[in-house]
Amino acid sequence: MTESSQIGPVRIVGVGLLGTSIGLALTQHGVEVQLADASPTNVRIAADYGAGRAAAPGDRPALVIVCVPPDVTAHVVEAELLAHPEAIVADVASVKRSVLDELRAAGVPVARYIPTHPMAGRERGGPTAGRADLFAGRPWVVCWHAGAVSATPVETVIRLLGASVIEMSAEAHDHAVAMISHAPQLVSSLMASRLVEARETDVALAGQGVRDVTRVAQSDPELWVQILGANAAPVRQVLSGLQADLERLLLALDDVEAPGARRTIAELLAAGNEGVTRLPGKHGGAKRYVGVTVLVNDEPGELARLLHEVGEIGINLEDLRLEHSPAPKSAWLNFPCCRR
Amino acid sequence: MTESSQIGPVRIVGVGLLGTSIGLALTQHGVEVQLADASPTNVRIAADYGAGRAAAPGDRPALVIVCVPPDVTAHVVEAELLAHPEAIVADVASVKRSVLDELRAAGVPVARYIPTHPMAGRERGGPTAGRADLFAGRPWVVCWHAGAVSATPVETVIRLLGASVIEMSAEAHDHAVAMISHAPQLVSSLMASRLVEARETDVALAGQGVRDVTRVAQSDPELWVQILGANAAPVRQVLSGLQADLERLLLALDDVEAPGARRTIAELLAAGNEGVTRLPGKHGGAKRYVGVTVLVNDEPGELARLLHEVGEIGINLEDLRLEHSPAPKSAWLNFPCCRR
Repeated sequence: MTESSQIGPVRIVGVGLLGTSIGLALTQHGVEVQLADASPTNVRIAADYGAGRAAAPGDRPALVIVCVPPDVTAHVVEAELLAHPEAIVADVASVKRSVLDELRAAGVPVARYIPTHPMAGRERGGPTAGRADLFAGRPWVVCWHAGAVSATPVETVIRLLGASVIEMSAEAHDHAVAMISHAPQLVSSLMASRLVEARETDVALAGQGVRDVTRVAQSDPELWVQILGANAAPVRQVLSGLQADLERLLLALDDVEAPGARRTIAELLAAGNEGVTRLPGKHGGAKRYVGVTVLVNDEPGELARLLHEVGEIGINLEDLRLEHSPAPKSAWLNFPCCRR
Repeated sequence: MTESSQIGPVRIVGVGLLGTSIGLALTQHGVEVQLADASPTNVRIAADYGAGRAAAPGDRPALVIVCVPPDVTAHVVEAELLAHPEAIVADVASVKRSVLDELRAAGVPVARYIPTHPMAGRERGGPTAGRADLFAGRPWVVCWHAGAVSATPVETVIRLLGASVIEMSAEAHDHAVAMISHAPQLVSSLMASRLVEARETDVALAGQGVRDVTRVAQSDPELWVQILGANAAPVRQVLSGLQADLERLLLALDDVEAPGARRTIAELLAAGNEGVTRLPGKHGGAKRYVGVTVLVNDEPGELARLLHEVGEIGINLEDLRLEHSPAPKSAWLNFPCCRR
């Protein structure tokens, strides 16, 4: 283990949710943190919250972490590499290949640049939303690239923040987030867009299914346009496959009595079953779970009373989910659970 | 209020999850229940569980509830209308227009037929999965049609089961479930199907978003082929709109630098934001909520301890959600909540 006192100083450029959260956690661990942002007000707020001190001329950071929006990340990384010729410069943008490409196209030597992406903090932010524990228990991707210096100092900081390091290439990262984040985001938005035309009688019957499918459609459009703009090709590839399946499905729905139509629908549904099984279960364990559904009153302390009794008899909850009931003052609690 | 003793006898045809659950609840309320099924074994199991007694020759039910798969519902409803000329015959199939159409096409007088659909119990079943409280707090659609007798006896039974009656036409019902159940099901399956081709490095980064979008893709293909086959036209209409949006989106992703491309993406995401707001909130209230995220240990009783303290200080949970952390023995609990 590296001692916290041996880490840093760390310069954080961009004190939004991610930058401020990193600053808060590092400061709590005794690391010297220098804060910079296009907005002097935001730097003052982040410093007031305890994320570090305002950067000053003559600062000589060992590590710079660029936490600015994706569309200006390459530009800021370039400026930081120039300004701090002995520092490692990392970023946290949610697309990785385009930043590297942009730097290389500009002729910037990228040996000291370590691309990273924490899988956390997707809600909107600003410095006041920062939390020292934002990354605890989250995956944090670190991308290697040809000719890069050792990523160890960056990974030490990531582990200090409580996150789990996952190493992969920038290409593999962008392919992965296209498949498991960007395409699901767009599919959710595509379905949610249909609800704009829904009648009152339609939405009156809405259950948990449509709520789950459309939950991420609440995301911020401006941020997502940046992300999708920088990862268009891999996302397009996933959605093109989906488009081909959708075309086949619409043909089948057009004449369900035609030979093969029901088989087409069944095969799509079965493929969906299979796809879901690809998502890793919690902790990769092979426990056996039992699903339980309970009607609970909508009162403070009701869930606590129920879960207290569940804990008393040694049952561990694997997951839980509230489904709102149309009846007033009650909700359904669903949970798969297992006995330890 | 009608006294329970004045209701029935009720004949239930098909003792799967729904039929058995109805039988259990009615029996507990003192209503005489007669059970019939193509499988004598299932009738015996349901009777053993307390869902009623096996139907016998000479039974004269006041109400017949047909709880068989969608593709044989019309056929069974027709047989029951004939066999019990003084009874009201209701069904619980998840599509309504096709059953009515089939009956009318066969020249069956439908005055005594009341189409219904409980929005509950979508998981697979059989009699052993039956639960007396399956319908408590759930919406239950009752469809009116020209020339039908009063639905009051059916609605009395539905309310006795604890469900909320929602009256609409068969057309409005089928349109509604296409929009808020069948199309989301297929969209979820379409996205989940893509995961079949996912690499190990892709799914390693899977977070709560993709899990939510693909949760209902775990549904039973055989049941859904029946449902979709019987409601193809309204589902096709919703998905055709989605297909048009997807085409525009793919064009934009094909060249994100083209004029208007980013606007196309932004407009889709903004429409998704708007669509989600159409889904009614819990109880339609205008409370103000605060979202809270806490890292909890994966131990029996941990959630109970946390929620006990939340209840102690008078905070009411609006919703809650567990996100699994890649770190062992911990999970994130997210909950919007409000002070009462």
